[in-house]
Amino acid sequence: MEHQAANLISSARRTLLICHVSPDGDAIGSILGLGLALRRRNQDVVMACADPVPESQSYLPHADEIVQSPSGVFDLVVSLDCSDLERLGTAYDPQQLAGIPIVNIDHHQTNIRFGQLNWVEPTAAATAQMLVRLVAALDVPLDVEIAACLLNGIVTDTRGFRTSNTSPEVMKTVSELMNAGASLPELTDRIFNHRPLGTIRLWSLVLPHMRLDHRILWGEITQDMRREADYAGNGDAGLVNFMSTADEADIAVVFDELSDGHINVSMRAMPGYDVSRVALELGGGGHAQAAGCTLPGPIEEARADVLERLQSAWYQQGQME
Amino acid sequence: MEHQAANLISSARRTLLICHVSPDGDAIGSILGLGLALRRRNQDVVMACADPVPESQSYLPHADEIVQSPSGVFDLVVSLDCSDLERLGTAYDPQQLAGIPIVNIDHHQTNIRFGQLNWVEPTAAATAQMLVRLVAALDVPLDVEIAACLLNGIVTDTRGFRTSNTSPEVMKTVSELMNAGASLPELTDRIFNHRPLGTIRLWSLVLPHMRLDHRILWGEITQDMRREADYAGNGDAGLVNFMSTADEADIAVVFDELSDGHINVSMRAMPGYDVSRVALELGGGGHAQAAGCTLPGPIEEARADVLERLQSAWYQQGQME
Repeated sequence: MEHQAANLISSARRTLLICHVSPDGDAIGSILGLGLALRRRNQDVVMACADPVPESQSYLPHADEIVQSPSGVFDLVVSLDCSDLERLGTAYDPQQLAGIPIVNIDHHQTNIRFGQLNWVEPTAAATAQMLVRLVAALDVPLDVEIAACLLNGIVTDTRGFRTSNTSPEVMKTVSELMNAGASLPELTDRIFNHRPLGTIRLWSLVLPHMRLDHRILWGEITQDMRREADYAGNGDAGLVNFMSTADEADIAVVFDELSDGHINVSMRAMPGYDVSRVALELGGGGHAQAAGCTLPGPIEEARADVLERLQSAWYQQGQME
Repeated sequence: MEHQAANLISSARRTLLICHVSPDGDAIGSILGLGLALRRRNQDVVMACADPVPESQSYLPHADEIVQSPSGVFDLVVSLDCSDLERLGTAYDPQQLAGIPIVNIDHHQTNIRFGQLNWVEPTAAATAQMLVRLVAALDVPLDVEIAACLLNGIVTDTRGFRTSNTSPEVMKTVSELMNAGASLPELTDRIFNHRPLGTIRLWSLVLPHMRLDHRILWGEITQDMRREADYAGNGDAGLVNFMSTADEADIAVVFDELSDGHINVSMRAMPGYDVSRVALELGGGGHAQAAGCTLPGPIEEARADVLERLQSAWYQQGQME
């Protein structure tokens, strides 16, 4: 499939590369890795994402050349790491791009095959992993910049080789990217060993109040805590993942009070338990092991509702074992 | 070198495999990986370590067959992952083993070459990584048990591929071990995603009192906190590593009050700073980025002394940049 994609891409005159909104390390690494490869071939390419490149990814070479609103005329669109057209956000303007063929390159199971060419490999650990083969099919030798971008995609999407789709093939690809000059230690240090002190302060405010009810460990982030911690980031700062490592818990939950009063609920379950059904019941979604939803406040009501549902799910699932 | 080692080992009648005291995942994984390989050849082998196999490593196949006091007659000793004879502890009895040749297989820079054959590769990320080549030289095909033990050694010693000696060669070896049936996701989940709730409770007691002085972030673990957290483990429960991830700190320190009143001091430094000199001044040791020492209590005095030395080291090192 990479050869079909390479044929289409290599004959394009001006290519638009786009990835999903709220881009992660695989989205940005993929755009840059493929974008740089096309430039090595002297192909005209525009790299775009509807949302700005997140701070954590801005260190990648040429990250500042990713635009939010692509302009001009294109004869090919390559969508990267994105499961449907809507997730491309405003970077994909259906009027501007009407009739322009789309090459859809992705590894999400949920991809709806919206392209003219759909290269979707749900077993790949990252879109960047697939692109290593595409770059080879385009006859572009891996160099340190391309390799660093693609390695960034693989390392972030596998959370440092810890997801279940980290195959022997992934490790071989990583070895190849390192041989091309990408520094794995530098990259993992940058991705996993740095956080603002505000994050640690937020943990120090949340953890003393966490509670273990039966085998459900839960905690709360209030707006007051965010202010006190001087924590500027969105989300739960990694708390629910950390709490889910407790041996004594089968399920971990963090209730996160948003500035508009809504409550973001992040849930994690050990293998054998499933939090996605409770998330679905409450209008959210996710996987068995990681799911979430957003509820109206106040936090006490959201908490009571979710914990009751989780207790009953936990009980039923425990019975089924 | 693996072929010389293989020649000696394959002609031995009864081999003693030993590793260092306070064994880690590389020591135990190496003993088991090589021990199982010799058994596949129907060679007589005894696996020994002066200290018991730690709980975290006891899941490895045949871990319960590692003895603390080896007995009987041997004609070869293989020392694994150990830099000198003393570090073998009581598992190496110089009288019992007088005159028996030692094959010394290790990756520590500090290895003093105490064997008759010394195969020391300081660039290897783990002794287990070297053993993959030895197993091949012994003509033993990798099977799932051998591969799991050796992968365990590599993953633990590289902290999940995050140390600077994680080379492309390491990743290729990992790919090989996975192809032989070892499950990397299972292994990383086991090693990195599980901790007793007491650990999290200890964090919740220490973090609210941490302090940032200039660019030194420090915290204290008292005996009272250990009791309140019901934390049974030794050491700082990973706190100093976590605190050292703060962007605002160049140095992190944890003062850990021991049950006998002594204070264990664990220090971490960002690249560009060096905490080993302060550790050495105070009778401890370590590397530039990670060092420690043990001081008499009370904790307030130890803290005042260490922080003053670190501030002055920090100032001097900052000047040198």
